[in-house]
Amino acid sequence: MAKKLDPPDPELAAFGRRLRELRYEAGLTQEALAEASTLHRSFIGQVERGIRNVTLRSILKLARGLGREPHELLLPAAE
Amino acid sequence: MAKKLDPPDPELAAFGRRLRELRYEAGLTQEALAEASTLHRSFIGQVERGIRNVTLRSILKLARGLGREPHELLLPAAE
Repeated sequence: MAKKLDPPDPELAAFGRRLRELRYEAGLTQEALAEASTLHRSFIGQVERGIRNVTLRSILKLARGLGREPHELLLPAAE
Repeated sequence: MAKKLDPPDPELAAFGRRLRELRYEAGLTQEALAEASTLHRSFIGQVERGIRNVTLRSILKLARGLGREPHELLLPAAE
């Protein structure tokens, strides 16, 4: 996990948009992604909103839950 | 920053090998990369040894210090 931040950090928010994009592409709810990645649903929500400075281990768990390669999570979001 | 781990975590160690590879390609010492990325030299050493669960913000700082795109840091090391 990692520290919770308020307000959102622009770079973390950009990661959050990318995560949401990949989650939509995978057809997963936050709850389903949480279960697939062994993380908490509230944590997924906070990462998507850019208020969590997510760690590498959580990034790797999210990639596994999404069925993606880790580096794909650090590409820019399409929109 | 993030928690210091002992012994190394295999996934974090893989990231550390990739970081070292990119640092060598950039022709930077740990000290030079630390300065370019506004992180501590000892922190760089710990990340390269796989005993730090580095955060997204530190990954982004390292990418800037290396002159690389963030996603390049999550690709597998060549060796």
